[in-house]
Amino acid sequence: MTARRLPSAGFSITIRVAVTADSSAIGRLTTAVGEAGAVVTALDVVDSDHTCIIADLTCDTADAAHADQVVAGLEALDGVEVRKVSDRTFLLHLGGKIEVQSKVALRTRDELSRAYTPGVARVCLAIAENPDDARRLTIKRNTVAVVTDGSAVLGLGNLGPAAALPVMEGKAALFKRFAGVDAWPVVLDTQDTDEIVNIVKAIAPAYGGINLEDIAAPRCFEIEARLREMLDIPVFHDDQHGTAICVLAALTNALRVVGKQLADVRVVVSGSGAAGTAIMKLLLRQGVGDLIATDRPGALYRGMPGLSPSWQWLADHTNRDNYAGDLRGAIRGADVFIGVSAPNLLTGDDIATMAPKSIVFALANPDPEVDPRAAREHAAIVATGRSDQPNQINNVLAFPGVFRGMLDAQARGYTDDMALAAARAIADTVGADKLNASVIVPSVFDPRVAPAVAAAVRAVAKSEAYAATGFRGGVTSDTPGGAFDETPVLPDPELS
Amino acid sequence: MTARRLPSAGFSITIRVAVTADSSAIGRLTTAVGEAGAVVTALDVVDSDHTCIIADLTCDTADAAHADQVVAGLEALDGVEVRKVSDRTFLLHLGGKIEVQSKVALRTRDELSRAYTPGVARVCLAIAENPDDARRLTIKRNTVAVVTDGSAVLGLGNLGPAAALPVMEGKAALFKRFAGVDAWPVVLDTQDTDEIVNIVKAIAPAYGGINLEDIAAPRCFEIEARLREMLDIPVFHDDQHGTAICVLAALTNALRVVGKQLADVRVVVSGSGAAGTAIMKLLLRQGVGDLIATDRPGALYRGMPGLSPSWQWLADHTNRDNYAGDLRGAIRGADVFIGVSAPNLLTGDDIATMAPKSIVFALANPDPEVDPRAAREHAAIVATGRSDQPNQINNVLAFPGVFRGMLDAQARGYTDDMALAAARAIADTVGADKLNASVIVPSVFDPRVAPAVAAAVRAVAKSEAYAATGFRGGVTSDTPGGAFDETPVLPDPELS
Repeated sequence: MTARRLPSAGFSITIRVAVTADSSAIGRLTTAVGEAGAVVTALDVVDSDHTCIIADLTCDTADAAHADQVVAGLEALDGVEVRKVSDRTFLLHLGGKIEVQSKVALRTRDELSRAYTPGVARVCLAIAENPDDARRLTIKRNTVAVVTDGSAVLGLGNLGPAAALPVMEGKAALFKRFAGVDAWPVVLDTQDTDEIVNIVKAIAPAYGGINLEDIAAPRCFEIEARLREMLDIPVFHDDQHGTAICVLAALTNALRVVGKQLADVRVVVSGSGAAGTAIMKLLLRQGVGDLIATDRPGALYRGMPGLSPSWQWLADHTNRDNYAGDLRGAIRGADVFIGVSAPNLLTGDDIATMAPKSIVFALANPDPEVDPRAAREHAAIVATGRSDQPNQINNVLAFPGVFRGMLDAQARGYTDDMALAAARAIADTVGADKLNASVIVPSVFDPRVAPAVAAAVRAVAKSEAYAATGFRGGVTSDTPGGAFDETPVLPDPELS
Repeated sequence: MTARRLPSAGFSITIRVAVTADSSAIGRLTTAVGEAGAVVTALDVVDSDHTCIIADLTCDTADAAHADQVVAGLEALDGVEVRKVSDRTFLLHLGGKIEVQSKVALRTRDELSRAYTPGVARVCLAIAENPDDARRLTIKRNTVAVVTDGSAVLGLGNLGPAAALPVMEGKAALFKRFAGVDAWPVVLDTQDTDEIVNIVKAIAPAYGGINLEDIAAPRCFEIEARLREMLDIPVFHDDQHGTAICVLAALTNALRVVGKQLADVRVVVSGSGAAGTAIMKLLLRQGVGDLIATDRPGALYRGMPGLSPSWQWLADHTNRDNYAGDLRGAIRGADVFIGVSAPNLLTGDDIATMAPKSIVFALANPDPEVDPRAAREHAAIVATGRSDQPNQINNVLAFPGVFRGMLDAQARGYTDDMALAAARAIADTVGADKLNASVIVPSVFDPRVAPAVAAAVRAVAKSEAYAATGFRGGVTSDTPGGAFDETPVLPDPELS
């Protein structure tokens, strides 16, 4: 039913083979790999003699089972012996994906005296006197905690903290790569809401922001709300707000392409968990025409029995006509379908029942709510979370720039206005002349995205601080007459 | 009473001055700085015209008050205007001293697919299946948490978590510089023992070791003991064990120089808090002849009223003759004095009452228990914690190598035998031919120290694991038939 996955670099393997040295040897290897449906990306001869060749054959496969098939195909060949199979993804993970680097040189006694004792004592005393100086004199200025309890790791479920660590490391690597933000993984060996709240509160002094990640709903809502109350740094649950920003950005451009207005369209959301709820709240804030929230029991409506508090809120604030029924019924005549739920809930025929020029965002990972190729036969625009399809909606478009902007402004909280500004910045990065049904979001590698998002968020943060304090200096608590001067008198004090 | 501090790089300032352009202008500036007792380390002319010179004058001062005097001295000169004073130590701290770097390239879609989704999902699943794989496939392999509650920051007292952060960052920088260990600051906004224990337990999955730092006694003892019970990674309180290792190393060499045996000497320790207790326990373990523990109330003795549990333990296990009296009385005839307490408790005359060829380690920071110059008139060997005196006993000799060794061995705990081995390794780094009364410890910059300590600790960890399991593979839980192969088949998989 769903599109078969294509071979990708995420499932790249290197196979070391010994093969009889005849003129067709290499050819038989690559043919076998190709017949198994994999893509050879490199072939290196490691050693050879008069009778035998040792070669490393690297190829992209579709998934682990496919990799096994490829290896079996080689083993079945006459005169071929498979010596070793290495998984390049695992090799890349050996020892972890991030490291801590010193920004200061420690070559001499003098350098040690400034970075550590005795010099550091004065910096400690300055911060003790004015705690906000930590935002200037420590890593707090540029550092974000990426916090998870491992309860909802990717689409894989409750794998726990150790198994979540590779995702958090990857996230930290993305933060640095795309926005120069120092992010550190905090994987917690507890799934108790109170404990998580207390721990994040306790570790917060070192951080300028908190990025919650892969924490299951509804726990994630309470954790986020309580931390926002307690902390004077932004708390951002990427699965909610990052996704909501990217969806709004994509929808903004999709509506531009089909020539509809947000205020006029009816949107159906499949999946009313963390991501779905955040998406719907942001769409409501932006003035969507109508919205129907659905989940396993169907559409959420006023009077529905057994609603949880968050579903009750959705029932109260969406579904203008109070539709009660299943997802299939809900999308009939709808302009927009947004899925953040489960694979293969809909068929192309279901999409055909939507309004003309319909928009389908089928974001379940790795397998979308509807086969994008089938959806594309009926919808004007189709987007997924997959990198092998057009219009990939990927949170990496949002979170690096959002935190860059918040850190730069020393923002004390994350707000809806920042989300709206970030979404607009992402949407506007696709120039009006470039926009079409297959290009509603910029590439994740577009270097203009993160700076544009950062600038938009920074501007909101500074204007909010202005509104709150009447002080045009932003949310910072600069101490102009402080113990030290932030502007170096020398271009590089270390060179003097 | 105590030695006046010398100008040092820890108190280096850069002063921008405008001065009338005559031939003696620069000379008058440097003369004024020299007369104020500071040391000019650089003079850069920034701008000039026919009548005026703008120059940046960088100089080492003794402390903040001295820096003010130097500036006042310049301001008092005719034709000199001080424009700006920058403190180089504060400049160096702007934005913090460490950063997070990605170890993996994220240039292309393929690289993203391996380091993040979809490839990372397989790594998560592998760790979920075999949690110990986190020691190979994540940062846990090489990463240490530097944990503090800010309750005993350097010698400065209870400054809290934000003010402790510069010290923890510096520590992390030292870990990387001296032993390639990735260390991350965890500064906790709580000083409750139960909370600290629970938090460290909860964050532990990402770390291969815990370095407790600057946590006040007696809380630090309970925190350490409980965490050791709970965790399968080493827990090391540097203020205790790092200090104990370095003191034992220094004492080993000091005894070699004066020709005494540890089993024969009487040692008096001033300060029975975290550091003092750990030093004494290690000396007892190594077979010291006799030992008297002292603190504010004098010597700790059996029958002393109001002893805390840890002081009771010391009274029970030290003080062979059950001496009851003050520190001055205790050191009379003693061979070794070790101070980890408070400045200026003793005079040179007190040291004169010790046994011949006495050894004095006056480690209170920044001002020692006795002026080292006065002590040196009577003792054979004097060591301090200060970098401007011979024989600096500095924990940086121990902790980087100790953690390097424990991480390499994937050690599940820190043991006394590791401490003894580390101390021996540090002592032996000073060759027999180099050893003398002014060189009982190696330089902190001696590149042989950390590798020697690491090798010694690693050997103990592996033999302990062997004793515990009978398995010669060390404390690792390698899964030889695991899902992946740790040895890359290509020299660099990224180059293929």
